[in-house]
Amino acid sequence: MAAADPPLEVHLDLMSQPCRAVLILLSCTRTPHRVRSVALRRGEHRTTDFSKLNPMQKVPVMVDSGFVLTESDAILKYLVTKYNLPEHWYPRQPERRARWDEYTAWHHTNTRPHAAKVFILEVLLPAQTGSQVDEGRLVRALSQLADTLDKLESMFLRRQPFLCGDDITVADLLAVCELMQPMVGGRDVLKDRPQLQRWRGRVQSAVGDSFDQAHAVLYAARERRRARL
Amino acid sequence: MAAADPPLEVHLDLMSQPCRAVLILLSCTRTPHRVRSVALRRGEHRTTDFSKLNPMQKVPVMVDSGFVLTESDAILKYLVTKYNLPEHWYPRQPERRARWDEYTAWHHTNTRPHAAKVFILEVLLPAQTGSQVDEGRLVRALSQLADTLDKLESMFLRRQPFLCGDDITVADLLAVCELMQPMVGGRDVLKDRPQLQRWRGRVQSAVGDSFDQAHAVLYAARERRRARL
Repeated sequence: MAAADPPLEVHLDLMSQPCRAVLILLSCTRTPHRVRSVALRRGEHRTTDFSKLNPMQKVPVMVDSGFVLTESDAILKYLVTKYNLPEHWYPRQPERRARWDEYTAWHHTNTRPHAAKVFILEVLLPAQTGSQVDEGRLVRALSQLADTLDKLESMFLRRQPFLCGDDITVADLLAVCELMQPMVGGRDVLKDRPQLQRWRGRVQSAVGDSFDQAHAVLYAARERRRARL
Repeated sequence: MAAADPPLEVHLDLMSQPCRAVLILLSCTRTPHRVRSVALRRGEHRTTDFSKLNPMQKVPVMVDSGFVLTESDAILKYLVTKYNLPEHWYPRQPERRARWDEYTAWHHTNTRPHAAKVFILEVLLPAQTGSQVDEGRLVRALSQLADTLDKLESMFLRRQPFLCGDDITVADLLAVCELMQPMVGGRDVLKDRPQLQRWRGRVQSAVGDSFDQAHAVLYAARERRRARL
């Protein structure tokens, strides 16, 4: 490694929702880092080298001066703490931090699987197998996602502009990146959700160009798909 | 509330795995608290009063001087921080804390669902519906659980006595409570796993009587079931 290289490396595929969350945090806080691309569609997460780095064969993976860490939650929290990023990203005050931990625990059994399932059924499975979209399963997945979106509105965003309070946290990044994913199939899951659209707008404003930069791969996939239809 | 009442209340059903983890932490650290019982089998989590406390209608719920918190992860971390419990439970040093965050993120998509599924298929569904165990689904669930147990052994416990290092953390409590659950059906999922049995023994030694006290309801359910067969 040349002397000028940053000690922080992140192994990412920007088609992966949590990878985009990690990249947005690093970019908008101008934290020096180097991105190593891992193309899931080419199976690069199953190579011998990558499996040595992460035997779980998943992205994102962070390597900070030799310290290897997996799981997006853990990576985001570590980055805020270790690199002294502005505290609002992951508040220190126990009650505010607890709200963050509460949302992310909920996120992994709600926002993440329910938004991902719509993408998998509408885009990924048909692309991999050449088969039609399973409309019955898609309707059920959309209904589960609607329930999650209802809860995001009525509980987490009821009295505050961001998911965990008055300022943006890494929880908002995790959530917005999941909710963007079905866009590849031409579906904006927030279409009839003005409250959630305003929240997404606030997240985009807060992180600036990092948002579209991290989503460029996703937008391109959407355009390629549109051109083929 | 009388003057002598502790400010900390936890709403628990001890048949719930994460509820037991919360109780063990409170008991073995002798943190003053009051337990409010919420019997899931009687639908007490769906009452108007409980739904006001937690609209998600789930246990555990913590109330600390009016601060209401859900999600076991968030509760456990908050308690360690707020009540200044011994640091080993949730280490402060960034790399060690990151290992904790990494395990718990993994836990919620591996240890928890895979152990719970065995319990659901073997005990809960037959009890609720009166039907036989679906052997095909059970075989698949046991295979998924075996994969998770392999990873616990080969990755998390490979070079250390506890899941996140040399000392017990709340991650060990979350994990052990999940892996105890299928015992209700007479199944010790660690039966042929000496490495994991030794780990469970270390966890039990570390928390003392709190372990069996928290699991008394589970042991009693196992005995009732045995007597009926």
